[in-house]
Amino acid sequence: MNTFGTLFRLTCFGESHGAALGGVIDGCPAGVVVDEAFVQAQLDRRRPGQSALTTSRNEADKVQFLSGIFEGKTTGTPIGFVIYNTNQHSGDYSQISEVYRPSHADYTYNQKYGFRDYRGGGRSSARETACRVVAGALAQLLLKQAGLNIQIQATITQAGGSTDVEQAILAAKQQGDTIGGIISCTITGVPAGWGEPVFDKLHAKLGAAMLSINAVKGFDYGAGFDIVDKRGSEVNDVFETDADGNVVTRTNYSGGIQGGISNGMPITFRVAFKPVPTLMQPQETIDKEGNVVTLQPKGRHDACVLPRAVPIVEAMAAMVLADAYLLQRNSRL
Amino acid sequence: MNTFGTLFRLTCFGESHGAALGGVIDGCPAGVVVDEAFVQAQLDRRRPGQSALTTSRNEADKVQFLSGIFEGKTTGTPIGFVIYNTNQHSGDYSQISEVYRPSHADYTYNQKYGFRDYRGGGRSSARETACRVVAGALAQLLLKQAGLNIQIQATITQAGGSTDVEQAILAAKQQGDTIGGIISCTITGVPAGWGEPVFDKLHAKLGAAMLSINAVKGFDYGAGFDIVDKRGSEVNDVFETDADGNVVTRTNYSGGIQGGISNGMPITFRVAFKPVPTLMQPQETIDKEGNVVTLQPKGRHDACVLPRAVPIVEAMAAMVLADAYLLQRNSRL
Amino acid sequence: MNTFGTLFRLTCFGESHGAALGGVIDGCPAGVVVDEAFVQAQLDRRRPGQSALTTSRNEADKVQFLSGIFEGKTTGTPIGFVIYNTNQHSGDYSQISEVYRPSHADYTYNQKYGFRDYRGGGRSSARETACRVVAGALAQLLLKQAGLNIQIQATITQAGGSTDVEQAILAAKQQGDTIGGIISCTITGVPAGWGEPVFDKLHAKLGAAMLSINAVKGFDYGAGFDIVDKRGSEVNDVFETDADGNVVTRTNYSGGIQGGISNGMPITFRVAFKPVPTLMQPQETIDKEGNVVTLQPKGRHDACVLPRAVPIVEAMAAMVLADAYLLQRNSRL
Amino acid sequence: MNTFGTLFRLTCFGESHGAALGGVIDGCPAGVVVDEAFVQAQLDRRRPGQSALTTSRNEADKVQFLSGIFEGKTTGTPIGFVIYNTNQHSGDYSQISEVYRPSHADYTYNQKYGFRDYRGGGRSSARETACRVVAGALAQLLLKQAGLNIQIQATITQAGGSTDVEQAILAAKQQGDTIGGIISCTITGVPAGWGEPVFDKLHAKLGAAMLSINAVKGFDYGAGFDIVDKRGSEVNDVFETDADGNVVTRTNYSGGIQGGISNGMPITFRVAFKPVPTLMQPQETIDKEGNVVTLQPKGRHDACVLPRAVPIVEAMAAMVLADAYLLQRNSRL
Repeated sequence: MNTFGTLFRLTCFGESHGAALGGVIDGCPAGVVVDEAFVQAQLDRRRPGQSALTTSRNEADKVQFLSGIFEGKTTGTPIGFVIYNTNQHSGDYSQISEVYRPSHADYTYNQKYGFRDYRGGGRSSARETACRVVAGALAQLLLKQAGLNIQIQATITQAGGSTDVEQAILAAKQQGDTIGGIISCTITGVPAGWGEPVFDKLHAKLGAAMLSINAVKGFDYGAGFDIVDKRGSEVNDVFETDADGNVVTRTNYSGGIQGGISNGMPITFRVAFKPVPTLMQPQETIDKEGNVVTLQPKGRHDACVLPRAVPIVEAMAAMVLADAYLLQRNSRL
Repeated sequence: MNTFGTLFRLTCFGESHGAALGGVIDGCPAGVVVDEAFVQAQLDRRRPGQSALTTSRNEADKVQFLSGIFEGKTTGTPIGFVIYNTNQHSGDYSQISEVYRPSHADYTYNQKYGFRDYRGGGRSSARETACRVVAGALAQLLLKQAGLNIQIQATITQAGGSTDVEQAILAAKQQGDTIGGIISCTITGVPAGWGEPVFDKLHAKLGAAMLSINAVKGFDYGAGFDIVDKRGSEVNDVFETDADGNVVTRTNYSGGIQGGISNGMPITFRVAFKPVPTLMQPQETIDKEGNVVTLQPKGRHDACVLPRAVPIVEAMAAMVLADAYLLQRNSRL
Repeated sequence: MNTFGTLFRLTCFGESHGAALGGVIDGCPAGVVVDEAFVQAQLDRRRPGQSALTTSRNEADKVQFLSGIFEGKTTGTPIGFVIYNTNQHSGDYSQISEVYRPSHADYTYNQKYGFRDYRGGGRSSARETACRVVAGALAQLLLKQAGLNIQIQATITQAGGSTDVEQAILAAKQQGDTIGGIISCTITGVPAGWGEPVFDKLHAKLGAAMLSINAVKGFDYGAGFDIVDKRGSEVNDVFETDADGNVVTRTNYSGGIQGGISNGMPITFRVAFKPVPTLMQPQETIDKEGNVVTLQPKGRHDACVLPRAVPIVEAMAAMVLADAYLLQRNSRL
Repeated sequence: MNTFGTLFRLTCFGESHGAALGGVIDGCPAGVVVDEAFVQAQLDRRRPGQSALTTSRNEADKVQFLSGIFEGKTTGTPIGFVIYNTNQHSGDYSQISEVYRPSHADYTYNQKYGFRDYRGGGRSSARETACRVVAGALAQLLLKQAGLNIQIQATITQAGGSTDVEQAILAAKQQGDTIGGIISCTITGVPAGWGEPVFDKLHAKLGAAMLSINAVKGFDYGAGFDIVDKRGSEVNDVFETDADGNVVTRTNYSGGIQGGISNGMPITFRVAFKPVPTLMQPQETIDKEGNVVTLQPKGRHDACVLPRAVPIVEAMAAMVLADAYLLQRNSRL
């Protein structure tokens, strides 16, 4: 359940305020040069405290590789890694131990498991996404060193109701409120033929990957939800050959994927994020006994998760592609 | 790759114009009374030729169970089934063997596998969804006989740009064109505590399930894409207790799922479908050699897949829930 | 649970006296020419009634492929197949519905599932191995057409206490008794480098494969159980180079596998089979209510399963190797 | 590939001389009280330096749990753990970097991956079994707290050709040689009904588990290889009822498993180990270039792995049983 991928696999662990997060990256072929600075740089993109747009908490997420790398290269054996939690203040979270925070996972974890690690949200905290970023960075290195020129580029295209992202986030922050938004991602350089028919369509894997990220409420690809009021004659992507004789499509409503398999055009998708539920204003809720209580704002929190979610979206996309790459190596005799 | 589910699993096979479709349903507990009439009725909802809204082809999809059922009940062993293709006219499809139809999977299958079964789209045809409906019906029977009162209700809420579904489809049909639309689904009766944290969040599984259906371009749940321009203070779902003392939320922007786990409120999601790419009008494309050719309309095809997709959406949802049900039986000691 | 393999996978179904057996072979690359006569010939090796050594029942096991093959070649999509049961006489088995036959699975199935399909042993019957033979034949075709010269040769090296197999079986048959024995298998032509470290060692996969065959009680490879009273200095396989400069070992106590990975030497293993528990003489046992009853011999049964088990051992080995072959294609960048 | 189990799963990592070993235990239900002293005690049984029978190297294997445990109990989320390697002397192993040690995995890893971490055998070292012992201890705690009275008892029944284990090992050690032997295991208290038909038979899972342990050459259960020269009439296990009315078998040639499913009788199996290939005497072999070289003995090594393998056998058995326990909870409606 805590494993992602079929051949290129991440199995991860860790709570927000436990001793450490970490994981095992299994199935990475031997011979990939591990650029640890690149991995750390991806991780740094995710951590808070980097700009006025994110929480001022300073979490130094330092990844330590424990196995699977020798003389700078992957050995084909599993790559274990840890990220120690160095800055927990469990005391900060004592208020929530008996209370179900609105739109958090407190109540559902309790119902599922009978109790929960309430410190900082425990396993439900987005802190676990640090492990995804590590594995995504490895996936990027694999794809690059396999000679593929794949570019994965995620950007915030909407924050709250606005395209002026910075302004929208600062406004929400000032009001002690939060906003969501949309991250759009474009992937170029994926050859035609990746992805599996039926259940493991490439966009179904990308969708599952994105929907597994905290606070995500929706996913679409290509023309997405906007296609529903178009005619087939408007949005069919006509095949043609380009100047070099390559097969391309005149338009790209398909978002680079047809029948679940890449067609060589740019892969495009959108991810919708909700406003983070932790507000800097009082909120009504109930405790375990059903008493109505008022949650008081406490600590430092992001007014919008999107700036920090960009590298996570890219990491998940990279893992899906690395997996698809390895799988398609066996599609023909 | 052709297996769906972790514990309640469907492994399926079959092309549009091969001898038969079929599959193996594995992991269904022993003791479920198999109401074959109910299964067949679900299958009949999917088949064409039932109203003016769908193609007039008459495909009698008759499921035959081959194993795993004894004296009317599941035995705990795998349930094999077949649906023979009785009405193929391969000759109808000879035109497409050398041509890449716009927005179909012809080109991508060729790139992946080197060649393809071009008859009626082969494996990429939506005909494979018949197997999903069979497995979904079994999942429904399992959930019901487990004493759960779960209702899965999908409906077409938009066809093309309109909410007058019948009118929109007939108009498109008359013009030899096609339209997409939105199917909305509401599931009631799921207890709190189903779904797994992190990668296998309940909505991520539902999303992957829906995105794997032919022609689907997007998925969102709860407030979905509409949440992105709301404030956290507007869309946080406040917990309260109802008249019976049950924990409920005052609003349901979460769509019944928090932190990837059901919270007992109705689960709501939307699925966006594109217009089917097969048109009743000429279309430009290229053949295998890159020559520009014109596709002439031929045969009988749906102007809109949504009426037939409703039972498929429900079937996939049922399979996800049956799997989540079995998994959660092990969430506590 | 009814799926075997990681990339080259068989998911199978079927009871002894149900409508049909069958399965889905998934993960076979596109482009394998399917020699159906070869597949049927493997299946014919398994069926009874071929010589005085096996039961005189005549089960015509005719495999029908339903999908995944087009113009004689695999398409990369799942290969569905069925083998209809044409010769069941359920009436022959009514005696056992209330009785637990000694050393059969009657009691354990009842305990697990609450009831069982008692006709001919249901799912516990060795009849399911027909599906393994079909998938094993496909695996053989894949390996051969991948340009590998792998030879899998299983032979009966002991029947009862004797190496005169024919004589031993006929003697047991005459006495209405049964015997077990040993099948030894040698596989040549496997390149060095197949198999995975730790849990999925090549011999662990072979062992699991063989132990899953009905009536198997033991598995060893290389020097096997006989190695336990040897010194390391006696059984270490010294590396040297042969006349062509290839790395070989002077001896092969390792049985072609070191550290779970093939070393290019012949792979050798042994499989121990118990005497089939169905005897042609009265046996004491109890029924469901605990009453002591006497089972009377009935029907026609093998006095020794080994002659029919030879192609099953080879089929399982072929599936393990096909899987290892596909997996090792991704061991390096 | 480095994951063991279906529901109760260990994914592990680590090389002999890397920074650390560790893993993720996933699928353990919430609410198991984690007795860390018990886990550490199991680990201590495996480590060397405990008696004259094992190597005098002193490896303090201290497990650190990093997640998944809160207030002393499992939370249902993944349990990450590490065991740091504190005592490596990589210099000790420089001799082997260019040489293929007889009956080790040096050559096969090189062939598979193109290069290898040669320090202390890297991933092929039995040091990875420490992680298995940790997970096995958790499995034991789960089974116990589930109210089951399962006893798993492994013992050395033969070392070299002798039953006087201590004497045989000391004699081999004195001669700079090594011996193998047999570990026999008996498991009592497993209820009838555990294990899955066909591929995942309980003994097939036990067999795969045992065969995955370093140096294991064979596995059999119940009467095992000794059954092959018996008649069916001799070794059929007659059912009867005991004084309490429970169904038992008069004999137990089946080893507690019939048709792949436990029957409530003691489960018995044997595991054959080869002599460890590292000798305290010179050995001939070749290097990477094919030159004949002589390996000189160096360091401290076990003359027989069996004393340290006992807790590993028990740990793997416990994991198989924990998995079977969770799976069978879903065998009936």
